[in-house]
Amino acid sequence: MIDTVSVAPVTSFRDTLVRHRLLIPTGARGVYGFGAEFDRVLQRLDALITRAGENDGAEVLRFPSLLPRTDLEASGYLKSFPQLVGLIHAFDGDDRAHAALLQAVAHGTDWSGALGTTDVVLTPAACYSVYPSLGGETLPPSGRLFDVLGVCFRQEPSDDPARMRMFRQREYVWVGDAEQCRAHRDLWIRRAQEMLHALQLPAEAVVANDPFFGRGGRMLAASQREQALKFELVVPITSVEHPTACASCNYHQDTFGRAFEIRDARGSLAHSACVGFGLERIVLALFRHHGFTVDGWPMPVRATLGV
Amino acid sequence: MIDTVSVAPVTSFRDTLVRHRLLIPTGARGVYGFGAEFDRVLQRLDALITRAGENDGAEVLRFPSLLPRTDLEASGYLKSFPQLVGLIHAFDGDDRAHAALLQAVAHGTDWSGALGTTDVVLTPAACYSVYPSLGGETLPPSGRLFDVLGVCFRQEPSDDPARMRMFRQREYVWVGDAEQCRAHRDLWIRRAQEMLHALQLPAEAVVANDPFFGRGGRMLAASQREQALKFELVVPITSVEHPTACASCNYHQDTFGRAFEIRDARGSLAHSACVGFGLERIVLALFRHHGFTVDGWPMPVRATLGV
Repeated sequence: MIDTVSVAPVTSFRDTLVRHRLLIPTGARGVYGFGAEFDRVLQRLDALITRAGENDGAEVLRFPSLLPRTDLEASGYLKSFPQLVGLIHAFDGDDRAHAALLQAVAHGTDWSGALGTTDVVLTPAACYSVYPSLGGETLPPSGRLFDVLGVCFRQEPSDDPARMRMFRQREYVWVGDAEQCRAHRDLWIRRAQEMLHALQLPAEAVVANDPFFGRGGRMLAASQREQALKFELVVPITSVEHPTACASCNYHQDTFGRAFEIRDARGSLAHSACVGFGLERIVLALFRHHGFTVDGWPMPVRATLGV
Repeated sequence: MIDTVSVAPVTSFRDTLVRHRLLIPTGARGVYGFGAEFDRVLQRLDALITRAGENDGAEVLRFPSLLPRTDLEASGYLKSFPQLVGLIHAFDGDDRAHAALLQAVAHGTDWSGALGTTDVVLTPAACYSVYPSLGGETLPPSGRLFDVLGVCFRQEPSDDPARMRMFRQREYVWVGDAEQCRAHRDLWIRRAQEMLHALQLPAEAVVANDPFFGRGGRMLAASQREQALKFELVVPITSVEHPTACASCNYHQDTFGRAFEIRDARGSLAHSACVGFGLERIVLALFRHHGFTVDGWPMPVRATLGV
């Protein structure tokens, strides 16, 4: 099912997207604005994901890209992925400190010393906003299902437009017992694959691991793969050899139940599972595989999206 | 036209929004998730603002909440509003630095020392992403018009839900000569007022000033008012005495033209003007004035929004 499209180098793909005003470059790597057609396709994709889950009775939650720092600390993210975190610093000084700050700016030197840490970080994954909101809760026997849209940040500057530093993630998140979570994960591996195939994208489901940090991280990654906790739906975008994860289906066991003291109806620590769709990545895959002008896309793809 | 609704105290309004699952509280002040009905109204409001400007031929630009740090430096924002800025710090250490970071987290001490400054800040106003993208450009004689949606951050923690730290701003931005910019600003003072009145919100246009920092800031604020560069459309949300700015219409003179070397067709530094709508604030005003259940809103308001 993987097609054999010869994938242009990263920068030439990016330049073409910019020339078509699909992406608007900024001076920072991996940070882009979006033009009208990119945004239109992304909104229609978001609506398609709504339709795929609309009969399940999920509660809708939308989040900005800020997360309380204490929630990130409690989640264990700093242990596993410190290299990806973005912490917000802010200025809390007087006129004199301000003058010093402006001096540093004028001289082109580092002015961050005038700032201090705040109580907020950037959200690394959309579902990280959900679990703290359930803190201390006992779930109903059927568990709870959430339909989440969040804006995520990961500090991995890249020239590959499919690896942005800030991006939108649409998720369906289940919190309940182990069996419910595994069933949710498996249901969405199938649904996500069907959706991407309906968009005529050559998506393949593969066992995957998160980019755990450092020496200890290698063991964690191996264990995650061995237990098949994470599946990714990968599509070639800027490389055929290294296709891009456009969706991932994850079973977290009781990681978040333990971190935020969420319990299932039987009193055990809650388990959780999520499917996450990388909206910008799927839009990029569509432009990559079907061309840079929506009008030229295959009719069944346009009909599926409603564009 | 100002109605005399008795406005409940800030926290009771917030608690009612939370009880109706319109806002989802987080552990950080001024940071909220949004429930289904809040999101639905916000999306319809966004579409209404699209319709108000759709015949003007604006170029659509959508931006994430990241801005290159050098663009913030060039803009002059650090001079005027240092207290509102959010700078992103990130970790760039090895296994040993990581161990120290985790120790600090475990002991509940400040771990920000393990992090360093990055090349990105949070966007303070949606149009700040537009001007750098025009850097060095000479504009056509008719100027250029942009339809912008951006996500903004301002470090002003508050219990007032109408003062969020991260919020969405929809803008129409004109870049051209002085006369075009003044006309754009004046057109949108009228249009914004008409729109808010169609939503049966008691909006009043008032001369306003930005919250310039420190001792020098007082003079800048006075001068901005004296020249009537900024108008706000204010609506009582959590206070009748201090109504909330739901939209603002600004003429920046050549501030951004100078900062980013943008020139008009005659070779002079470009001027700019923008109207900005605070999407969350207008949605809050709707729930405040028409009730917490959309089904109970006045029919003309529902018809205008399409909800």
